[in-house]
Parts: sequence; structure tokens; C-alpha cells
Amino acid sequence: MRIGIFGFGTVGQGLLQILREKKSGIEVAAVVDRSFQRKSELLRGIKASADKDLILKDSSIDTVVELMGGIDDALYVVRTALDNGKNVVTANKALLAEHGYSLFQLAERNGRIICYEAAIAGAIPIVRNIEAVFRNERITRLMGIVNGTTNYILTRMRKDRMPYGDVLEAAQKSGLAEADPTLDVGGYDAQQKLALLVSLVTGKWVEAKNIQVRGITEVTQQDMQWAERFANRIRLVAEYDFIDNQHFMHVTPALVSEKNVLYDIEYENNAILFHGEYSGEHLFMGKGAGKFPTAFSVYSDLLHLQSENTKLRLEYDGSYLAIGDIAQTSSAFYLRLRVKDQPGVLAAIAQILGNCALSIASVHQDHSAAIQGEVDVVIHTHAAKRSAFYTALQEIQKLKSIVLHQIYLPVL
Amino acid sequence: MRIGIFGFGTVGQGLLQILREKKSGIEVAAVVDRSFQRKSELLRGIKASADKDLILKDSSIDTVVELMGGIDDALYVVRTALDNGKNVVTANKALLAEHGYSLFQLAERNGRIICYEAAIAGAIPIVRNIEAVFRNERITRLMGIVNGTTNYILTRMRKDRMPYGDVLEAAQKSGLAEADPTLDVGGYDAQQKLALLVSLVTGKWVEAKNIQVRGITEVTQQDMQWAERFANRIRLVAEYDFIDNQHFMHVTPALVSEKNVLYDIEYENNAILFHGEYSGEHLFMGKGAGKFPTAFSVYSDLLHLQSENTKLRLEYDGSYLAIGDIAQTSSAFYLRLRVKDQPGVLAAIAQILGNCALSIASVHQDHSAAIQGEVDVVIHTHAAKRSAFYTALQEIQKLKSIVLHQIYLPVL
Repeated sequence: MRIGIFGFGTVGQGLLQILREKKSGIEVAAVVDRSFQRKSELLRGIKASADKDLILKDSSIDTVVELMGGIDDALYVVRTALDNGKNVVTANKALLAEHGYSLFQLAERNGRIICYEAAIAGAIPIVRNIEAVFRNERITRLMGIVNGTTNYILTRMRKDRMPYGDVLEAAQKSGLAEADPTLDVGGYDAQQKLALLVSLVTGKWVEAKNIQVRGITEVTQQDMQWAERFANRIRLVAEYDFIDNQHFMHVTPALVSEKNVLYDIEYENNAILFHGEYSGEHLFMGKGAGKFPTAFSVYSDLLHLQSENTKLRLEYDGSYLAIGDIAQTSSAFYLRLRVKDQPGVLAAIAQILGNCALSIASVHQDHSAAIQGEVDVVIHTHAAKRSAFYTALQEIQKLKSIVLHQIYLPVL
Repeated sequence: MRIGIFGFGTVGQGLLQILREKKSGIEVAAVVDRSFQRKSELLRGIKASADKDLILKDSSIDTVVELMGGIDDALYVVRTALDNGKNVVTANKALLAEHGYSLFQLAERNGRIICYEAAIAGAIPIVRNIEAVFRNERITRLMGIVNGTTNYILTRMRKDRMPYGDVLEAAQKSGLAEADPTLDVGGYDAQQKLALLVSLVTGKWVEAKNIQVRGITEVTQQDMQWAERFANRIRLVAEYDFIDNQHFMHVTPALVSEKNVLYDIEYENNAILFHGEYSGEHLFMGKGAGKFPTAFSVYSDLLHLQSENTKLRLEYDGSYLAIGDIAQTSSAFYLRLRVKDQPGVLAAIAQILGNCALSIASVHQDHSAAIQGEVDVVIHTHAAKRSAFYTALQEIQKLKSIVLHQIYLPVL
């Protein structure tokens, strides 16, 4: 096996180191990187260039590893590689979420393979397991922490009692968050990974942009502390449910109770919990990012291609998945409101909830924390249809005694 | 693919149901079961007999599924099947732990495969993952809860505050423990599974009987409650460590802190935590037993054989693994002693521990719980060489003030 690597950053360098130490018969024939000249020490003995054709036009290279990131250049590289008869290994979830459907079809037409273990949940071998071990199993439920950056931020907010903005800044300084963090903190990275996961699980293509998404930017230190009072933690979860023959999915911050295994997944770790019809509940946990964990997933894809066992790849049947309306599913909720500290407010809120058939599990109001005649009210509801909760929320916001609708989170 | 099933109990029946619903091109050609006549309803349309030759001499059957349990008959069936050119899928860890080495060699000679996903940790696809995904990864540490029965007993003891004997009896009544529970509660089932796991991880054969083992029969309700006081839980763990080029392993009940992911693995669930040199820490959790979870693992082995991807099977290199002396490794310890409630006892114990270079993390003595002038002393040590702890333990037991050496457990 002769491979060409596009993009020689952290992961590419980790991959080269693993390949050199493992002696697995995989030869790095060439590397394409914009700043290959600055990296000449690391690249000693390997042909390198900024010119993509070094790899794409070398017919002795059978496999392309795409680690450039971004969309346009990566798309060109992957398309050309497939057209030139090469297999592709990529860690680029953004590329796959946007162009995966056409790329997988192109690969199919050319009898080639795209592997992407590193694109979802870092070192966790979730793609291989869903494709191979669980390929004939119906996955009825999947719930994951698939974005390391947001999980790191939420963990630090809780442990260090620091506000969101400060933690984000610290994460940016230490390289755990991008200068423009929108993709992560807005939930879009998790949205892309969920789309790929559900495509795998159902065999039908899921358009990432059709998945409802909420990020973590609304989550405050107060919510962290309220969560802790009820032995809950806040996690950004990617959720899929197969109910009544419909496929529901969304990305949302949620309260997770200490009984849920996701409660213990801290910092940049990732975890995927899923339920198989026959095989029951499974949890896979592992590093969500990092030089070697990510590089190892790429390496494991190369081993997979090397074993010539190409029959296991899931074949998309050419149809898009119909996504159900998540509002029609049920959940318990946490709701924090800022209200005027005066009699009758709770009664008015409770009446609205009752009118919408929402049953209250608990109400908390901390009068001692009142500021300028305003106070936080925290309500936990029992499980009910999300649409009923949203209707109640609209009504509650109309009340004159509500200063600010702060935040609501589903409770898992 | 035409398969023959030996043993048509719970798992066999679950497998037949899965195969009928999945329509995966796997045909059940024949079933051999001692009481096949009583099961004729379930076996409708399938050739059945108590005579093993129905399957073994049918050359149209390419794969044998061995679900009989026990050793002697199963050994005959697996050997004959391999000799007659059939692949074998088995859930029989006892058979493999005792005769696996010769059976894998026989399979190798005959160009046939033995699959055994269901033999270790029920529905968790640990065999496939170590063999395929992590086949070139060095696993430096592995820690698992691999016996559902003992985990169920320990969970019930903690939650229902019932003594060991009562919980065991309840587990036997509900079918979760055998009439003779020795294999489970003595830790021997976990010992066999650990031997198979470490064989997979190292590629060298491990003799189960050479692995140090302690069961859960010593664990009392008092230990449960002491553990809880320190936010610990008691688990039967199978542990492997690769340190200084030596392989250490043992099965022992241990205290697990709430920070350890094994803390949350309750009832008959299984979990395997392992550390890969490059890929980092992984946790796989799933059902350790049960009709469909176990049957699904057998089914998944059949799919694997069907894909003709036979190159991934680990080839034992014909040598046995040298097992290091576990006493030379380190651990923190919990020690509970029954002592005479009189001055100077603690000082004497502390002096022995100090002489053996063991540092005390905490000492607890509950005078209010003294009975007839005797009281429990609970000591937590910091991590130190196990051998030093054992030496101290021998010295402590010689003290006249010690009524009874009750129990010691490593703390993870």
C-alpha cells in the first residue's frame, strides 16, 4: 500500500510517526502541504510539495489521506483521487456532511472506498462498529457527546465556576477551541457528525442542515449551579430516536442525571451510547480529539483498506432520510426564568403549564438571591410532548411578571 | 452459508429468531440437542436430532455453532467440526480457556476459523475490536467487569443492603446464578475470560489457571457500607497491566472510586476499559448476558465469517505468555480488621505498616459499633508494592489484639 497525505499538520505528523513505528507495510510515498518547506526535517526521505498533482497524478499511489480540512480544496482532492482510482481516508466531517452524498456515489461508481473513522468522535471506532459488527442490527436510539471542545468548555465551567466567555477564551489560548468557535459552540460540528452517524445507522443519507441544532452559548454559570443542585450536569448531546417508524434527531444542550453514563464523560472525551434491538445498550467512550488518538483512527482505516475487506462498507441506497418533527417527541424539561419577586407569579406560570397539560416535577425560587426585586424561578417538568412545552413557553413569555425568559433545557 | 447448531437452549433459540427476522442468507440446516423432541414446535421445518453426526457428517454444513456448554462433548464437537472442514462459532469460554490453544492450532492447520465473540463480555464486541480495529495497537492496560453474575450480586448487596448469601439465593432463583455458583463467585469465569482477552491483546497464549484469582465470597455487607462512606463501590475486576516489558494480570474484588467509569456499571452489565498506546483510553460497555445480547454476538460472528474476511483473525505465534508476579506491582489498599477495643492497638498496626514502608491514607474506628469489646478498624493505605502490603498483613495477623483478619481489597 502506497499512500499520499494531504495536509501535514498535527494529525498528519502523528500518522507518519505511527506508520514509522508500526512497520505495517504502508509506505508514505508523498506529502502535499502548503508549508512543506518549513517541515522538511520531519519529512526527510519523503517526496513533498505544495502541488497537489504530486500525489493525484502519481499512479503508484493507491490511497489518499485527506487531512487538509476546509471544503473547497479538500473536495477537489477527494474527487480527483476517486476519479483517478484511489481510495480515500479523510477526517473531514464538514466536507462529508456537505458533499458526502455525491462523494459516496462517486466512490461507488468508481469501485473505490471512502473511510472516515477519524471524522466522528476521534479515537472511538464507531464507524467500523456500526458498519461491521452492528450492520444488520436496528439501532433504535443513539445519544452522544461528539464534540470535544464544547464538552471541555462545559466541564471547565462547572469545575472552575468560570463564566462561559472566560472558559472559551482559555480554550482558545490552549488550542482547544478555534479563533472562530462558531462551528463548535453553535453545535454545528455535532450536527454534522450526527448526520453522518444517522446516515450510517439508517443507510439513507441525512442532510446535516435539516437537523435541529442548539449550541451552548446560552448556558450560564447559574444553570451549572442549578444543575448541580439536582445532581445533574449539562452536556451538549446529539440524539437520534427511532419511534413509530419515524426518525427523530437533534443537537441540544441537555441536563443529564448522574444515573446516565454521559454524566461522567468529562473534558474533551467523547462517548456514544446506543441501543440495538437485539444486542441491547452499548456505550463506546474514548478520546474525542488529539494528535495520536485522531491519527490512530486514520491508521486504523488504512489497515482496514489494506485487509482488502471492502465488502463491509455501507452502500447508501440512493435515497435521503425523512426526518421526523422533533417537537412531536417527548422530554422532561428544566426551565429557568427571571421574574418579578411578587405574589401570584408562580400561580400564573403554573396555570399555563397546567393548561398545556404539562405536569410540574418541582419549582424552586431563591428569594434570598433576589436582586432589585427580581428573582430566578427554576421549574422541572415531567416528560411531555416538546410541542406542548414550546406552546407553554410562548404563553409564559407574554406574562408581564416575566423579566426575561432565560433558558430551557431538556432533561435526559 | 449453512449452519448447524449444537445446543438449543436460550441462546440457540434467540439466534434462530434473529436469523429468521434478519434474512441474511444464513440457513439453519440442522440442530442437535439432547431434548430436541420437547422443542419440536420451535424447531419446525429444521432437521433435528440428539445425534451429533446429523451435523458433523453433513458436508453441506460449512459452519458449526457450539452452544452446548460444558467441556468434553463440546471439545469433541469442535474438534470434529474443524477436522471436517467447518468453521466454528462458540460461546464456550470454559472450553476455550482449557483447550483453546490446541483448538486454535488445529483450526490454523485446517485453514478454518474459530469465532468466540459471545464467550467474552456478552454483547460487547471486544474480540472483533481488539482483533481488527486495534490489531496493531499496543494495549498497555485493561480493566474489566466481565462477569455479570457477580456484578449483579454486588449491586444487589449494595442497593438492598442484603447479605451475600441471601442475594446469591435470590440470583439462583431468578436464573442469574447457577445452582453451583463456584465458577462465577469464585472468580474463575472472569479468570477464563481474562486469559482469552490477554491472549488476544498479546498474541501469545495465556493459561487461565496461572492467573491469580480471588472471588467475591469474602465480601460482606460491612465492606459495602464502608465502601459507600468513601464514595467507593466494590466490583470484581479482571485487570491486565503491561509494565516494564512484563505482563501482569489478576482477578480480584476491588474498591472502585466514583471517578472510575466502572463505578457506574451495575447489575449484569459488563464493561471493558483499556488503554491503547496511541489511541488513548477506551471504554466499551454492554449487556454481559441474556438471550438476545448473547445470541447477537453469535450472529455477528456468523456475519463476519460470511463476509469471508478471514485475514483479520489473530494468529497465535505458538508461544505461551510469561506472566509477571502481580505481587511486584503497586496498589492502594482497603483493610478491615476486627480488633479488641483497647488502647495501643492502632499504634501497633501503624508501626507494622510503617516498618513495611506503607503509608496510611486514613484510619477509621467506630467505637459506637463495638460489640463485646471488639471493634472494626478500617485502614486505607496509599499505593505501595503489593508484596509489602502482604508482608505487613502477615505481621498484623500475629498481633494478639487482632480478633480476625477480615478482608483486604485493592483500591482502583
